[in-house]
This record gives sequence, C-alpha cells and structure tokens, in this order.
Amino acid sequence: MLKAIQILGCSSSSVTQRWKPLSNQGLPSIAISFKPFSSFYSIPFLKALPTMDSWHLPKDSVPRTQSRPIHASSACSDSNPDGTSSSSPPSSSPAVQSSGVRNIKFCQWCGGPTKHDIPEGEERLRAICTVCGKIIYQNPKMVVGCLIQHENKVLLCKRKIQPSYGLWTLPAGYLEIGESAMEGAIRETMEEANAEVEVLSPFAQLDIPLIGQTYLIFLAKLKKPHFSPGPESSECRLFSLDDVPFNSLSFSSMVVTLSMYAEDIKAGRLKFHYGIINKRPGTSPSDIHAYTLDNHMQSTC
Amino acid sequence: MLKAIQILGCSSSSVTQRWKPLSNQGLPSIAISFKPFSSFYSIPFLKALPTMDSWHLPKDSVPRTQSRPIHASSACSDSNPDGTSSSSPPSSSPAVQSSGVRNIKFCQWCGGPTKHDIPEGEERLRAICTVCGKIIYQNPKMVVGCLIQHENKVLLCKRKIQPSYGLWTLPAGYLEIGESAMEGAIRETMEEANAEVEVLSPFAQLDIPLIGQTYLIFLAKLKKPHFSPGPESSECRLFSLDDVPFNSLSFSSMVVTLSMYAEDIKAGRLKFHYGIINKRPGTSPSDIHAYTLDNHMQSTC
Repeated sequence: MLKAIQILGCSSSSVTQRWKPLSNQGLPSIAISFKPFSSFYSIPFLKALPTMDSWHLPKDSVPRTQSRPIHASSACSDSNPDGTSSSSPPSSSPAVQSSGVRNIKFCQWCGGPTKHDIPEGEERLRAICTVCGKIIYQNPKMVVGCLIQHENKVLLCKRKIQPSYGLWTLPAGYLEIGESAMEGAIRETMEEANAEVEVLSPFAQLDIPLIGQTYLIFLAKLKKPHFSPGPESSECRLFSLDDVPFNSLSFSSMVVTLSMYAEDIKAGRLKFHYGIINKRPGTSPSDIHAYTLDNHMQSTC
Repeated sequence: MLKAIQILGCSSSSVTQRWKPLSNQGLPSIAISFKPFSSFYSIPFLKALPTMDSWHLPKDSVPRTQSRPIHASSACSDSNPDGTSSSSPPSSSPAVQSSGVRNIKFCQWCGGPTKHDIPEGEERLRAICTVCGKIIYQNPKMVVGCLIQHENKVLLCKRKIQPSYGLWTLPAGYLEIGESAMEGAIRETMEEANAEVEVLSPFAQLDIPLIGQTYLIFLAKLKKPHFSPGPESSECRLFSLDDVPFNSLSFSSMVVTLSMYAEDIKAGRLKFHYGIINKRPGTSPSDIHAYTLDNHMQSTC
C-alpha cells in the first residue's frame, strides 16, 4: 500500500485511504505492510464488552454452517451446507477438497457417469462426464446479508431452523442467480425479518475457504421502523452493541462482522473490511469462536 | 449513510468514511443518499483520456463472458460461461433464469432424473431429483483478479484464448473451492502472467447479475519485477493509464475496473468500489461498452 500511496502522491496522515491489519487489544491501529497468507491477527478488541469475556479467537476455525439450511444440497460446494453432520468435512487440503468432486457421480446434463481426473491444462481434480465430456465445476458460494442500524442498535434474528437453532444471526443467505449481492441482501432481510431496508454501503467481505463460502455484508437502514420474524426466525430484536449476544451467535462470520462493527463504532468511523476466516485446527465446527481472522484489511482515513 | 454518520457522531467533512455514487463528467463528487435499485450512474469521467473517446456507457449491458473459458460448463450458473454463443442467454427475468435450471436433467449424486419445481418453502424454480429428492442449486460465481501497479503503470494480459481472443484483460479467473478470494487472485495472476504479487487491498466488487458473476479485483504489486505470458496469454505488458487500450479490453468488468482506477488516480486517492453492471437491453453481448454501472458506492475520506 505504500506503493499506492507513493503513486498517488498523497499523505498517509489524513484523507488518503489506507488498508491495514487490525491491531490487537484495542490499541491504536498502526498501519503496517499487508502480508498475504502469512499474517495472523486475532481481534480481541472487544474484551471490554460484557458479552465478550470468553471471546479469544484462537487460531484457525470456521463457521459450522451456511446460513440458509434450506439449501439442503449443493452443486457448488464441497461443504455440507448445513455444516453440522458432514462425515467428510470440507478442507482446503487437496485430499479433502477432492471428496466433494468425487461425490459427483453423474453428469447433470446428460446423465452419463463421471470420471474424476485433472483435465488437460488444469491442475485440479474435476468431475468429467464420460459420455458428453462436460466438466462439472464446483465453486464457492456467496452469502449476502444486512447489518441494519436503527437508533444505535442492530437488528438480529433468532433462528427457528437448523443449524444453529435458537441462536442469533444477521439476516443473510445464499446469493441467487440473477440478483446482485445488494439485491440478495435486501431479499434475505425481507425473508428473515420482514424488514424493508435501504442499503447504505458494503461493510465486510469475509472469505471462509474451508467451506467454500464468502460472506458479503452490507450496512443498511430500515425504510420503515417495522420488522417481524419471517418463516426462518422465531424472533427479531434490536440490540444495542453492549447487549449483542456474542456467545449466542449462530456463526463465526457473525461474530467477526459484529465485532468489526462494534470496533468501528467505538473508533468513531465505519470502514470496509476484508478478511479470511480460518478454522482453528482440532476444534469443533460448532465452536464459533475457534478461528483466526487472517489477512484482515480495512479502509482507513 | 447519513444515518450511519449520525450514529457515529462524526463529521462528514474529513476523516469520516462515506459511500456515495460517482459523479459524472469528472465533476467534484457530491455525497448523496444511496438509492438501491433506482439509481443510475453513467461514468464518462474519463473522457479526457485519449482512449476513452467512444466510451459512453449507455444503459444496461453485460460483459459477454466469464474470464476463464477453461470452465466450459458449469453447475453453478445459468450463464453460458464463455458468453459468446448461448442460445438462451441468462437474464434476471424469471422466465430466462429458469432455462439454466431446466437444463439440469439428472441428479449429479444418484443419476436420477430431475423434475423442475418450486420446493416447499422456497420461491424459485429448482431442479429436484425424483429419486433421492436432493435439490441441485445454482449460485453465482466469483471471478477474482489483480490490478497490478508497477512504476505508475498497470499490468494487462492479451488473451490467447476465446472468448475475447486478442483482447486485453487484468489477470483474473474463477475462484476455486478451498481458496480465499485473495489467494485466488494471486493464483490467477501467476497462471496468466507468471507474476508473483503481493495483494495491497480489495479495490472493486462488481456484480453482473445477468450472467451470475461477481468480480472481486484486488490492488497488488509485483514482488519481483518479472512477468511473462502464461498459457492463456500471448503477451503481458505494463500500460500507463493514458495508454490503456479501453477499446480493446476483453470484458465490461475490465472497462469498469480500469476506469474506476484511473478516476481514483486522477483524484489522488484510491478507494474501494461496489457496483452492479447491467447490460443495456438490445445490445450485442460483445459490446463491452453497452452497459450501466448501477448502485455504484465507493469509500471516500
């Protein structure tokens, strides 16, 4: 980023936007060079919050689930979409990655049996139809949602469905073909909270490579001060930041998003965040605090 | 965004980050409320650039392709991945959206024939296996890439493959299962330009709902001043912004990304951008300038 700043000829002190890793422990942020893949930043900056006592964010974990279990199966991801009972949990290791590919046994277009091989010119194992020759690709999925700000509070939904039944989440779900991320986030908010929102800005992009997901969360506001539980929610409630139930959130992505938001509010400025959520090895998929947030970058002024 | 600023209690004048639509014609930007879905912003702000004379960005279009034609088929998108010869081009209209679903005739897990119906509790047509009952979901794909800054120039690759053979692109391609967007962008840059890069920051997220794609482009710098064409490129070259071949770019997403970048450089500050690229009705898929950039939001200081 120093390079960019040099090119722009801008000062790094005031209006120039920079990207930097989050500092730990709530200390003042220090802009340092961003190191792809090698940097590790735990973000216990919210220890001061009453609900964050047990939130230490150790190394490498992953949310245990996607946010819309209605997607009971998937053509696009190695992951068990509901994340709770996969006998072959997804992983970034090639061996485990290939398990999702190997589960594709038939061509969805012609019905022919597949073989599992590395196509010419590629480097990854793919499912290839032995009849029509087509390759059935798998790609990560996007989960989109809204962080709704209303009267110094944020709107959370209590899940009425598995996984994470009874736990709290931002309204979010899979992006669909034919819609933008913003449209998808608005739709999901209507579905889960019967809330009509106006999107204000993108807030966070969080990759979860282990389960083939990327979260895109937008800041939003209510168009009308009305909301109520949709079919997938048992309750929708506005929480002040001091009262956010960090130990009863549904997914790691929600812990990270709400923590970033609280940190931004505390610092007096909202930013856009990018980060990679990695599961802490050896931890339970249901431990939403057992992860690291790596390569965290944020816009700063 | 006013709401957010009020909550934060920050001034809107200096260090507070705000999001706003791009102004036209290179006039000073004016922060206004963001109107989801209804706003329309053409961005002819680069008319001053020599290569931008014919670049008027009319209403609604779409890039004609994904960036990696190696993905000759897809389980995840309605779109014809190479975008050049689809007899049923994808669209955000429900009727056309369903064509991709209807092409899924068999279950990829058990080989059973599918039916096409709206599952209980859902609102969209899905392919459902009549034997095992699983639903084969389709979701948008993420395309990730790098905008490499080097000595006040940017690195472009001339495509040696269809579609858009012989046209220029940023190194980019589909995100794979098991990698983060940043990792994917670094990998694609190595594959297409033999360039080892360090990612500096996210730069642009561009949704293209019509073809079920989202581009995530990162700013990056060369770790070593070496690059050369990979198997999919005939040439790699550094271009000063005045020399970027805007009329010989491969995809609309590249036009938008490089235009935003040039605008940021011109303004003296780099930002993060979000926007939706919509095809201009009635235009050729190969017309990379026939689109609108809608709901464009950018961080400003």
